[in-house]
Amino acid sequence: MSERPNTGISRRGLLGATAGGAALAGAFGGGRLALGTGAGIGALALGTSAAVAQAASEGFNVAPGQLDTHYGFWSSGQTGEMRILGIPSMRELMRVPVFNRCSATGWGETNESVRIHQRTMTEKTKKQLAANGKKVHDNGDLHHVHMSFTDGKYDGKYLFMNDKANTRVARVRADVMKCDAILEIPNAKAIHGMRPQKAPFTKYIFCNGEDEAPLVNDGTTMQDVSTYVNVFTAVDAEAMMPAWQVMVSGNLDNCDADYEGKWAFSTSYNSEMGMTLADMTVAEMDHVVIFNIAAIEAAVAAGEGQELNGVRILDGRKEAKSQFTRYVPIANNPHGCNMAPDKKHLCIGGKLSPTVTVLDVTKFDTLFDSDVDPRSVVVAEPELGLGPLHTAFDGRGFAYTSLFLDSQVVKWSIEDAIRAYAGEQVDPIKDKVDVQYQPGHLKTVMGETSEAESQWLVCLCKFSKDRFLNVGPLKPENDQLIDISGDKMVVVHDGPNFAEPHDAIAVAASKLNPLSVWNRQDPMWAETRKQAEADGVNLDDWQDMVIRDKDDPKKVRVYMSSQAPNFALESFTVKEGDEVTVIVTNLDDIDDLTHGFTLGNHGVAMEIGPQMTSSVTFVAANAGVYWYYCQWFCHALHMEMRGRMFVEPTGA
Amino acid sequence: MSERPNTGISRRGLLGATAGGAALAGAFGGGRLALGTGAGIGALALGTSAAVAQAASEGFNVAPGQLDTHYGFWSSGQTGEMRILGIPSMRELMRVPVFNRCSATGWGETNESVRIHQRTMTEKTKKQLAANGKKVHDNGDLHHVHMSFTDGKYDGKYLFMNDKANTRVARVRADVMKCDAILEIPNAKAIHGMRPQKAPFTKYIFCNGEDEAPLVNDGTTMQDVSTYVNVFTAVDAEAMMPAWQVMVSGNLDNCDADYEGKWAFSTSYNSEMGMTLADMTVAEMDHVVIFNIAAIEAAVAAGEGQELNGVRILDGRKEAKSQFTRYVPIANNPHGCNMAPDKKHLCIGGKLSPTVTVLDVTKFDTLFDSDVDPRSVVVAEPELGLGPLHTAFDGRGFAYTSLFLDSQVVKWSIEDAIRAYAGEQVDPIKDKVDVQYQPGHLKTVMGETSEAESQWLVCLCKFSKDRFLNVGPLKPENDQLIDISGDKMVVVHDGPNFAEPHDAIAVAASKLNPLSVWNRQDPMWAETRKQAEADGVNLDDWQDMVIRDKDDPKKVRVYMSSQAPNFALESFTVKEGDEVTVIVTNLDDIDDLTHGFTLGNHGVAMEIGPQMTSSVTFVAANAGVYWYYCQWFCHALHMEMRGRMFVEPTGA
Repeated sequence: MSERPNTGISRRGLLGATAGGAALAGAFGGGRLALGTGAGIGALALGTSAAVAQAASEGFNVAPGQLDTHYGFWSSGQTGEMRILGIPSMRELMRVPVFNRCSATGWGETNESVRIHQRTMTEKTKKQLAANGKKVHDNGDLHHVHMSFTDGKYDGKYLFMNDKANTRVARVRADVMKCDAILEIPNAKAIHGMRPQKAPFTKYIFCNGEDEAPLVNDGTTMQDVSTYVNVFTAVDAEAMMPAWQVMVSGNLDNCDADYEGKWAFSTSYNSEMGMTLADMTVAEMDHVVIFNIAAIEAAVAAGEGQELNGVRILDGRKEAKSQFTRYVPIANNPHGCNMAPDKKHLCIGGKLSPTVTVLDVTKFDTLFDSDVDPRSVVVAEPELGLGPLHTAFDGRGFAYTSLFLDSQVVKWSIEDAIRAYAGEQVDPIKDKVDVQYQPGHLKTVMGETSEAESQWLVCLCKFSKDRFLNVGPLKPENDQLIDISGDKMVVVHDGPNFAEPHDAIAVAASKLNPLSVWNRQDPMWAETRKQAEADGVNLDDWQDMVIRDKDDPKKVRVYMSSQAPNFALESFTVKEGDEVTVIVTNLDDIDDLTHGFTLGNHGVAMEIGPQMTSSVTFVAANAGVYWYYCQWFCHALHMEMRGRMFVEPTGA
Repeated sequence: MSERPNTGISRRGLLGATAGGAALAGAFGGGRLALGTGAGIGALALGTSAAVAQAASEGFNVAPGQLDTHYGFWSSGQTGEMRILGIPSMRELMRVPVFNRCSATGWGETNESVRIHQRTMTEKTKKQLAANGKKVHDNGDLHHVHMSFTDGKYDGKYLFMNDKANTRVARVRADVMKCDAILEIPNAKAIHGMRPQKAPFTKYIFCNGEDEAPLVNDGTTMQDVSTYVNVFTAVDAEAMMPAWQVMVSGNLDNCDADYEGKWAFSTSYNSEMGMTLADMTVAEMDHVVIFNIAAIEAAVAAGEGQELNGVRILDGRKEAKSQFTRYVPIANNPHGCNMAPDKKHLCIGGKLSPTVTVLDVTKFDTLFDSDVDPRSVVVAEPELGLGPLHTAFDGRGFAYTSLFLDSQVVKWSIEDAIRAYAGEQVDPIKDKVDVQYQPGHLKTVMGETSEAESQWLVCLCKFSKDRFLNVGPLKPENDQLIDISGDKMVVVHDGPNFAEPHDAIAVAASKLNPLSVWNRQDPMWAETRKQAEADGVNLDDWQDMVIRDKDDPKKVRVYMSSQAPNFALESFTVKEGDEVTVIVTNLDDIDDLTHGFTLGNHGVAMEIGPQMTSSVTFVAANAGVYWYYCQWFCHALHMEMRGRMFVEPTGA
């Protein structure tokens, strides 16, 4: 493109004004966008002070010493971490580094975290990193977080999350709230939508490859777009390795799974396989892709398709007319893909169409077994407002859809929508509420499981505008808490959040029971333990050993225990140019007694939780005295918890 | 040390139980520590529900759409970023990356941020980083944030912050809330306490070097601790370069400055210059060091002392008996160093002593001009409770001291403490409130300026224990909001925070007026602009240029504008092994319309705010097609805002 566009793209003037519209709404102090609602429902006034006060008295204000009732697990988009919030207080309780480099914990720098990063790293990525002097990618784009399921309910075991930026999926162990596995997915590009299988248990994580590229992407067929494919991946959730892949037509967006364990489904835009914005938006219809798990598993078992980079890939593209996939036409650029807790209805957000399309998943067998019209599985298509993106569900049969362009949430009845689609005179829309502004994902509490609750809705708004004190050109986003317990929705809290709270889930506190002290035998540091055993060091006992490697005399391993306010070693000595590995074991076994190891002027710092072992490796390039210290507050004499590394000059 | 200690250090059994005590308090559901208060004041009950409700009605609950009244600027300890919170809502409004690597913004990876990191990097640091394959340190330990002053009041211009881990000081511009300068301080080690000069304006930033080391730290005198020195540094706040340094005796801890611009002062522990925990705690008394700015400036102007690594260093050690410093004896391990808004009284926290020592700064001249007892400047020394660390002030003459061991905040009257010290029968203690648990820094609103207010106190507690849902072995810390407007202090909010909210300040919203859109001529990208001019590219106009460097044909510069939802370039082509610099200018000029540039599978992502220019350089190591996309939500067709980088095989 070489000409500067006027304003957005002119053929979609309606949409081109989005960002400007938000600015306008901001300028008018929280007013509605000037666009009509499409559904003919007038804008509700903002929640009044009285309504807010009433909602507050109903419990969203968590007083000092009181606990939240639900865990919120938040993605952070391009920040690359997982966040744990309390609901309904909307307070951030913890940050869990995953794809990012974390200064506090040493994530991305400790040997334990680098091993997790490198476990499945492709040769291409290793080459890319080596050319740029890095050990691991230190950024990510973490769009979605979802918990593992058993029988359609959260089982409190794992959290899974994607990295669109570098085509990865990661797992966080819910017992310790740390990432224990990162998988770089081969053959696919840009994992966007990602969901765990809901039933009978989370055997697979379904991963949408958003970007199309040549399957063998080695530069030989770059300009021939007919060689481009999109790849859907099922990841083995326990092994955290790819199970199988399916080539599809169109850019995969969001996905979900049913409550019987038979299907996965993905929204797909750019069915045109266009390469430019104009070409991507030509067709009137895109589609939802339905994946037939049993058929795919049988074909994989039979060795069909091809093996590439260790993964079996089947051809499920539209033109292949396989038993692996079906394509249900949906109006242009469908986005949200949300399975209702009634175990029957799948809701697809229209995005550029003002509709949500409701599919009956119990009819999907007919799509594969017979020659019926693919649209025969559609049972409702209510017109809800402009820019419907995602849909959340409560336990009473209501659905809540974010209207991106209207900056509203619409509450509607799935049952009434089905009756209306069948010809009855019934309005499925029950309520609308303004949100501030441009909502994306939204989530009810437990609403992605068969145990959906009906008290809270969290709506993640992309723009906050005038809702917070001005903090410069980069503004926070706005996670709004909405009380949905009554007939009318009431916004009760504005929650500023750093880039980008893309998606979230809310889990009842009873589903989780994390450890407060690590188990000494935890597999996180199994490799480090193995090295210690080879060095004759018992990591479970008091250690103060400095060992020079017999085979590689430039390598030194420094083992030390920590117990507040002491490191076992008050000093240790290495030589200039040595590759030093410091292994610290925290022998304190009290809740919250995390230690740290920071080495002055070396860019080295790490967390060592109670009973945890952590290690870090660096080259000591300069002779001199360098203090190390505990950076995690531990004791009244915390500041005195320090020691010296002596680096002897090479000539010494 | 080779023997495992029993529990902490036995000679300080009182303190050894600190962390365990907190655990115990947690186990008993928020009860007091079992230790006596020392001051004979019984524990207050936790704020009752009624009291909390009352406080809420007085305004700590910021309803949707309402704004906070004050900005809170928070340090983040080992996380290395600055945080902006709203007060009284205690919501995190923004994260500002400083010493950390930020996945979202590209901080630490963009050329603009790398230049800021490298501006004053020492040769030793360059060598250390090169040996470890890094361009910049990607961690920090950011203890303190303070705003620039004019005439004893916040002037809304800059925020300054320290990095204890890698001996640095940084500055954030308050107009855009981005870091614009990092200074690596030579000769000193581990910058801990840091304060701006309060009057007549912030000419200097005073920086405490905590760790002692040989002044020329080249490995030649490592074991001879008599060669170790501690270094105090004054940094030119505008140039962000060292102005002068003073060698001192003892480990410098916290510091502050007076309201006349005559003095800086630092608490100092380990006056013994001990190297082990036992040796560091032998002496009964440590000291406060007073720095005589006029005398130091005169000596620097006269060329006294020595020049080392570009900085003039004077000898202000105790034994040198110079006119640069005075040492006022204070009971063992003084910690907090807080100048009262009455412009007269300096409060020193006793830490291991149950007292706060009040010094009259108007008497400091006598210390330099005559032979008076250094303790003659002490005008009060109230016994307040166990573990007094830091003191905050309101606008009514009350002081608030955090009692680390008692897990309390004590409110006391400076005037009454002075009367009691003079022999009157008056109890300076007015109130105590339990906090949860182990408080460190605490701050009133505007309390470090002559405009101290009397509504809110924020107390940063190191341990949160049972106050939040359990999130695994790593627990959040707890920033508590306390209503100090009445006679009794009331804890009104528990604020979980990620490691480590070490210190904070609170600034009235009226003091700040940040930009919402960048100025195109901003100096942040001056170097990038210079390169563009040399390339014949006008960064202020629509650009879609790909330029191969004439002198180094492996270098390619890719210029593109962004305007929602388009990048100017839908694709560009480079060769395998090229060093590619992508320069993106965001031509949108609407509030909140930040774009991003993420390059798939290359670990590359950056923020480009409205009217901002950002650039990033990487080696493209693998042939193939790679999509780049906008990761900062910008438009309904945001997902379509993408393009392709073609990397041609080397043979092509």
